[in-house]
Amino acid sequence: MAQLSKPLLDLIGFFERLPGIGPKTATRLGFYLLNAPTEFVNTFAKSMTEMKNRIKKCRVCFGVSENETCEICNDGKRNRLQICVVERAIDVVVIENMGGYGGVYHVLGGAINPLEHIGPDELNIGELVERIRKMAKDDQEQAEIIMATNPTMEGEATALYIKRRITEINPNIRVTRIGSGLPIGADLEFADQATLNRAMEGRRGI
Amino acid sequence: MAQLSKPLLDLIGFFERLPGIGPKTATRLGFYLLNAPTEFVNTFAKSMTEMKNRIKKCRVCFGVSENETCEICNDGKRNRLQICVVERAIDVVVIENMGGYGGVYHVLGGAINPLEHIGPDELNIGELVERIRKMAKDDQEQAEIIMATNPTMEGEATALYIKRRITEINPNIRVTRIGSGLPIGADLEFADQATLNRAMEGRRGI
Repeated sequence: MAQLSKPLLDLIGFFERLPGIGPKTATRLGFYLLNAPTEFVNTFAKSMTEMKNRIKKCRVCFGVSENETCEICNDGKRNRLQICVVERAIDVVVIENMGGYGGVYHVLGGAINPLEHIGPDELNIGELVERIRKMAKDDQEQAEIIMATNPTMEGEATALYIKRRITEINPNIRVTRIGSGLPIGADLEFADQATLNRAMEGRRGI
Repeated sequence: MAQLSKPLLDLIGFFERLPGIGPKTATRLGFYLLNAPTEFVNTFAKSMTEMKNRIKKCRVCFGVSENETCEICNDGKRNRLQICVVERAIDVVVIENMGGYGGVYHVLGGAINPLEHIGPDELNIGELVERIRKMAKDDQEQAEIIMATNPTMEGEATALYIKRRITEINPNIRVTRIGSGLPIGADLEFADQATLNRAMEGRRGI
């Protein structure tokens, strides 16, 4: 792309660094903005820096927030004794969009991954343990900690590690794991063995 | 996504307005920038507005340029008698990336499309005709105008229309059309009839 002017090449380069955007899509997006109204491009750019300036992490759950604590943690109608533990802030959005979940969250900031040198101390696990430890004894025994980390090696290991840490506080605290098995609409024929295994293990009466 | 703070929602909304970016990808990109270094986000935003401020259209070919005329039009080694006519500025990049083309370009800014009220006057067709008319008679007879509009109804109609306009200037000017047929690596079994028809028409001795 030697013939493209530098400002456009620079912008395409930025798009290319976004996840899931290859060189072709990046070029297309660059040209799209080239032909888009200046007003749109300027407000887009402003929205980017503004988001970065105004959004912080919730002090309690480490989710996305404009204030010290997030809307979900502040919401009096939420069940504070049901904590859904997820890897990333975006997972909160996915579960919220599903609807029907009335508890609160705890964002770990990732999963334990020895290959990438991410141990428990790099994640918000200590803060989760503290959050549970601070609950009244009665509350602890009514609480449910839902491990909604990804069904990957790292996510499973993280869930098991956290389960152990919580049991150390109080062995009566209920720790659950989200269901694994065939996704809705899937075809048994094309399912991998690990998933099928989980689906069999997770079978329920009908 | 009621629980997401407005600055992040706004940014996701902007991503969603880009071509080929759905709500899920837009959300992913928004969260990616949320977690990206502030420096990266700020330079990305700046690059966007800068591109918009600095890039204009080449006065000759309507391609992308930082100056009055673009690098390709200014390049003395390019064959000015071979003009490749394309719909969009991005098509220039595609052909340049292919390598091996040594002529110049003319960007129409789209294709004739009566359904969307785009007639010849909305495109840079008059300017192309003028460009050819201004050539010396000898040059005209040596020139080749390559119609590289898309092989769609609109692209074909535009190519034919331009061919007629050029013939009015001088019937000896050579106007060519890029080849149509099966793309390399394709499977005959899955080709549509129109493409197959073109492939048969465009057959060559081997």
